[in-house]
Amino acid sequence: MNITVQQYELVYNSLSFGIAAMGAATLFLWLSRNMVNAAYRTAVTISGIVTVIAFYHYLRIFESWHAAYTVVNDTITATGVKFNDAYRYVDWLLTVPLLLIELILVMKLSAAETNSKGLKLGSLAAIMILLGYPGEVAADNTTRWIFWGLSMLPFLVIVADLFGGLKKAIDNQPESVRGLISNARFLTVASWCFYPVVFVLPMLGMSGGAATAAVQVGYTIADVVSKAVFGIFIYAIAVRKSAAEAAE
Amino acid sequence: MNITVQQYELVYNSLSFGIAAMGAATLFLWLSRNMVNAAYRTAVTISGIVTVIAFYHYLRIFESWHAAYTVVNDTITATGVKFNDAYRYVDWLLTVPLLLIELILVMKLSAAETNSKGLKLGSLAAIMILLGYPGEVAADNTTRWIFWGLSMLPFLVIVADLFGGLKKAIDNQPESVRGLISNARFLTVASWCFYPVVFVLPMLGMSGGAATAAVQVGYTIADVVSKAVFGIFIYAIAVRKSAAEAAE
Repeated sequence: MNITVQQYELVYNSLSFGIAAMGAATLFLWLSRNMVNAAYRTAVTISGIVTVIAFYHYLRIFESWHAAYTVVNDTITATGVKFNDAYRYVDWLLTVPLLLIELILVMKLSAAETNSKGLKLGSLAAIMILLGYPGEVAADNTTRWIFWGLSMLPFLVIVADLFGGLKKAIDNQPESVRGLISNARFLTVASWCFYPVVFVLPMLGMSGGAATAAVQVGYTIADVVSKAVFGIFIYAIAVRKSAAEAAE
Repeated sequence: MNITVQQYELVYNSLSFGIAAMGAATLFLWLSRNMVNAAYRTAVTISGIVTVIAFYHYLRIFESWHAAYTVVNDTITATGVKFNDAYRYVDWLLTVPLLLIELILVMKLSAAETNSKGLKLGSLAAIMILLGYPGEVAADNTTRWIFWGLSMLPFLVIVADLFGGLKKAIDNQPESVRGLISNARFLTVASWCFYPVVFVLPMLGMSGGAATAAVQVGYTIADVVSKAVFGIFIYAIAVRKSAAEAAE
């Protein structure tokens, strides 16, 4: 693969940005969890668990990227050590179900509804990730498209559930947070839409170093939005709900 | 031993998954321990001790795996440095007795019963691990089968005790948690059954890289279920019991 020094450095710096953003979000969330009522602390704790898992994987991805190339005197050489794509999928397998569970927990539904929604959306999210991986590592575009399509099925069920199934639950939330929860839901869907788009870039004619750089930078931006920014949203919802409960 | 690049990478990524899962579970359990009544905090703390011990060993196993092979330009070569199997047994020697103690502690039996059950099940678990190790490192199948059989004896006594001896204690638990404690007991036995099955794979004709990969991935899945998922179960039981006590 021909990658330029500029493309290499762009990915390198994006990955370091990922480490910093995930680490900072984790510390903020855990330091702030006592600012919200006990009922919302688990949601905030899990938001920090998601970002710390991502923090670990960004450290690993960064090291793997660093090991795959050497740049000396503005000349880039592949070392022969393979850049490990699988870290992202291992990360998503753990974090994507937890992201949906954060959203469900901060809504404080009944215990039965929390369990059933958490199990349903969490399982669908795990299946979505597992179906994506064989496509990501496939060399030919046909296989990539097949698994992309398969992975989109649970994705669409999750989107339908967030906008259909959760609508009634959102209408029952205190007025001060209804907009924020609705935004968190939009943020989830919008940031998640990044992933299938990034995934198809190499299938749309992008190739070589440009495709690699676009995929790595794209996934990093999507991860920071869907995990760190989303976690701050969850915290903001928890703060407003706590304030609304204190005012009652 | 002939191992393919794919088999090597599968084990590599499974071990990294183990590190992430154990680390995440540890942080969740320790951050959440103040969410339950004081009587259950030791059970939750120990659940996190188990996962942090496993986190440490997965870091070591990952490093050992990484040192045993080099992959350059999609060609794998054994470095001659031995992959250290003993880390798993050292881990189990510490964590398996503690797992049974978690389950006993969260039941809040009388002090006398907690001590006697903890001592009995904890000792049996340690003996089970010690008897397994000479088989794991043996080259010939006869020795493997002998120590497998010997190790199964304390295992069966533990299972009998979980389903016989603990039955009365479970019937005395508050109704809201009886199902969850019974599930935790099933999860223990079901996830533990993985180990003797994984152990015999090389004795059933699997060999070379396939056997190595199956054993390493199998143990990793079993460890994540029996330690991290089990720890979350213990936490959930503690939360429900605390809520039931607050309602009284």
